[in-house]
Amino acid sequence: MGKVEDRLQEMGEALPPYKAPVANYLGCKRSGDLLFVSGRVSEARGAVGSDLDLPAAQDAARSAMLDLLAIVKDSIGDLDLIESVEKVQGFVRSAPTFTQQPQVINGASDFLVELFGEAGRHARTATGVNQLPYGAAVQLEMILRLRN
Amino acid sequence: MGKVEDRLQEMGEALPPYKAPVANYLGCKRSGDLLFVSGRVSEARGAVGSDLDLPAAQDAARSAMLDLLAIVKDSIGDLDLIESVEKVQGFVRSAPTFTQQPQVINGASDFLVELFGEAGRHARTATGVNQLPYGAAVQLEMILRLRN
Amino acid sequence: MGKVEDRLQEMGEALPPYKAPVANYLGCKRSGDLLFVSGRVSEARGAVGSDLDLPAAQDAARSAMLDLLAIVKDSIGDLDLIESVEKVQGFVRSAPTFTQQPQVINGASDFLVELFGEAGRHARTATGVNQLPYGAAVQLEMILRLRN
Repeated sequence: MGKVEDRLQEMGEALPPYKAPVANYLGCKRSGDLLFVSGRVSEARGAVGSDLDLPAAQDAARSAMLDLLAIVKDSIGDLDLIESVEKVQGFVRSAPTFTQQPQVINGASDFLVELFGEAGRHARTATGVNQLPYGAAVQLEMILRLRN
Repeated sequence: MGKVEDRLQEMGEALPPYKAPVANYLGCKRSGDLLFVSGRVSEARGAVGSDLDLPAAQDAARSAMLDLLAIVKDSIGDLDLIESVEKVQGFVRSAPTFTQQPQVINGASDFLVELFGEAGRHARTATGVNQLPYGAAVQLEMILRLRN
Repeated sequence: MGKVEDRLQEMGEALPPYKAPVANYLGCKRSGDLLFVSGRVSEARGAVGSDLDLPAAQDAARSAMLDLLAIVKDSIGDLDLIESVEKVQGFVRSAPTFTQQPQVINGASDFLVELFGEAGRHARTATGVNQLPYGAAVQLEMILRLRN
């Protein structure tokens, strides 16, 4: 087990089982030193601000980021090959008056910084939407830089 | 005609006429080996799940991808210069209870794989939104890698 | 003061005070020659097409782009280090029947071209959403290329 997975274990977490993409696309695509990681929705369903409250949505974002990392491990074999996290996009299925999308996506961002330290600090956008695949609460995608 | 356009013809398709961007931006911008392709909406209008059903929305996504390729050809001159498709973002104008955004964007993803083979397999995110430019059903953007 | 800030002054504008990100992420992340600039919302609040009209939304987009440039300056020290603007993503909080998202984001795109000339011309996507952080009207993010 590599350093990043050791650190995950210290944090009381483990990579969930890998789930394959549901259609004719890749979980990740390498492009030079960048790795484009496909969007993945949270297990948690519902609109944030009505069906889910903020803490539940933050947990959903953290869990979805663990799912993304499981996909990355399946794709590149070893999370220690990640040099840094460049960009995260978070979409939050939002009840009409819910405006705390950044606080929701903090569930993922804080987790990345806890796991990778300074290399986990990233550019980010958190956006509200009316609906997501399977009625999920949160959707995350990211761009990583790999060691070469 | 290049190999990619030959393959399009075999598939019974042809590039549509090029439509220029509607404002002060570019259809594509080259950035090193990457080509950022601007978002383009489908000709088909309406919310998916109420005004359009799933098959109609999949057709809209396929057609919008053909429009994107016409823009790319106008920009780089020859589709054979495409090394691979790195990332596709699809936005689906979604009725409140419509949650099959991935199935809609498959209309574009399946088409890319049919056209480019393995090089057409890409990272992808499919997201629901409440509204799109001109009331369109689907919006697509992508990032390509060009041969150098 | 560098050339880009001189030009801003000629245009009757100045960089607003820098506002730090509201959470555990970076305003910008450098990745090779690219700079990923985090999403930032407009000061203007409300749904475009109901609370705000088109001219007010265009102003909101222009102002949000000035805020992005203030963040970039804080990150890289000198706007003259920008080689070109590669990609802009604009999200517009849209009333249910509002479909002029491209015209709204023109407020940012026209400004970039006025400021940077040809180098400011970019790939772009303008998308409608039902809600944004803090109830803002517009959200912008971008990818820049830096001189090396």
